[in-house]
Amino acid sequence: MSETKKTNIILFSGDYDKAMAAYIIANGAAAYDHEVTIFHTFWGLNALRKDGDVEAQKGFLEKMFGKMMPKGADKLGLSKMNMAGMGPKMIKKVMKKHNAQTVPELIEMAQMQDINLVACTMTMDLLGFQKQELLDDITYAGVAAYLADAEDGNVNLFI
Amino acid sequence: MSETKKTNIILFSGDYDKAMAAYIIANGAAAYDHEVTIFHTFWGLNALRKDGDVEAQKGFLEKMFGKMMPKGADKLGLSKMNMAGMGPKMIKKVMKKHNAQTVPELIEMAQMQDINLVACTMTMDLLGFQKQELLDDITYAGVAAYLADAEDGNVNLFI
Amino acid sequence: MSETKKTNIILFSGDYDKAMAAYIIANGAAAYDHEVTIFHTFWGLNALRKDGDVEAQKGFLEKMFGKMMPKGADKLGLSKMNMAGMGPKMIKKVMKKHNAQTVPELIEMAQMQDINLVACTMTMDLLGFQKQELLDDITYAGVAAYLADAEDGNVNLFI
Repeated sequence: MSETKKTNIILFSGDYDKAMAAYIIANGAAAYDHEVTIFHTFWGLNALRKDGDVEAQKGFLEKMFGKMMPKGADKLGLSKMNMAGMGPKMIKKVMKKHNAQTVPELIEMAQMQDINLVACTMTMDLLGFQKQELLDDITYAGVAAYLADAEDGNVNLFI
Repeated sequence: MSETKKTNIILFSGDYDKAMAAYIIANGAAAYDHEVTIFHTFWGLNALRKDGDVEAQKGFLEKMFGKMMPKGADKLGLSKMNMAGMGPKMIKKVMKKHNAQTVPELIEMAQMQDINLVACTMTMDLLGFQKQELLDDITYAGVAAYLADAEDGNVNLFI
Repeated sequence: MSETKKTNIILFSGDYDKAMAAYIIANGAAAYDHEVTIFHTFWGLNALRKDGDVEAQKGFLEKMFGKMMPKGADKLGLSKMNMAGMGPKMIKKVMKKHNAQTVPELIEMAQMQDINLVACTMTMDLLGFQKQELLDDITYAGVAAYLADAEDGNVNLFI
């Protein structure tokens, strides 16, 4: 009788702290048996990038975007007090001290909990991301798929 | 029998990329027969400004705000990698290459799809915006109207 | 028969304008008899800080965070046009002129309307905030409590 609750998060931001918030909420919701989707769009796609260089054929602008944007969750900056990269280091230090999970660890946990990690194909196209540059076992979809999930969602957030 | 679904977006941000995300979701939802409202508040009002100079009687501070803020959707900056205006130019170049719609085009489409574009009267007052400075055929309302829409909303987002 | 409507706002941002938007929506919703919760996390905790110095035993990193972050709602910066603090002054001037409520006044009103102001214990721990540094009569909770509220929420926003 009881329907599954649904949490749908759009991760638009490419900030470490916002990705952390998104994944903490998502993992919490999954632990409470919600069906959870994180729809990564625009700068949020950076959280799904593989660390290191990946072979990909690109145009000039796409190559530039690719070089300027952080490669993977561990490289993201902060939305506040980034201070040319010092902020993320400080945050990671206190996180370690308090045994808080890092964003890469939170993403791994999300995958283990079967959270649906979606990469927005429209912005992949726009920013020149190719599938081989992103994490394995993610889904590719557009705004129509997001809306189909969100219109029955209990918790819909734009982060 | 089936009720119309509702999508209500608060556009608080004055960034080109966030306005783009808001209008893509809104236009998508309208295409799926949602009743859609975009409530423009604070910097989000800039997306509704008319291009070019408009006659308006204002106090000194309001004039300054008016001069410092972007005039219309095409002039908005980026939330990330704005790089003194170079970022928006790059984004617009890749958008053109990929035939993606610009924000002014997305707004036009929203109006054709009868999406309710609302300007928040409280922040208009605060930032010194007058009706003749904003696009035609929009609605003027406050937080009470927003809440009346949102409390029955299926998808409520703050962007 | 009619159930109480619920509004749940996550205040992640430490910006004056975003805190203002959050508290205006929250106070509006409370006026329309919603059960309202504002869950303050990350930089949003700064809005709950007491003005002035509070005795607290802290480690070095926590002390630094504490010094660098704004002490209380009145000290927050703007998300746009902060201009090294000039923006907030301008905004406060026009707010005074238009008799708009300041954020500290909006928080006071929220407390009078029995809005549930929650401080996220996980980020308090991370950023080194102690209870004596935050306003009186607030609640302390984590993501599980947020989700329990939000999964039945009518209006859920991440600000």
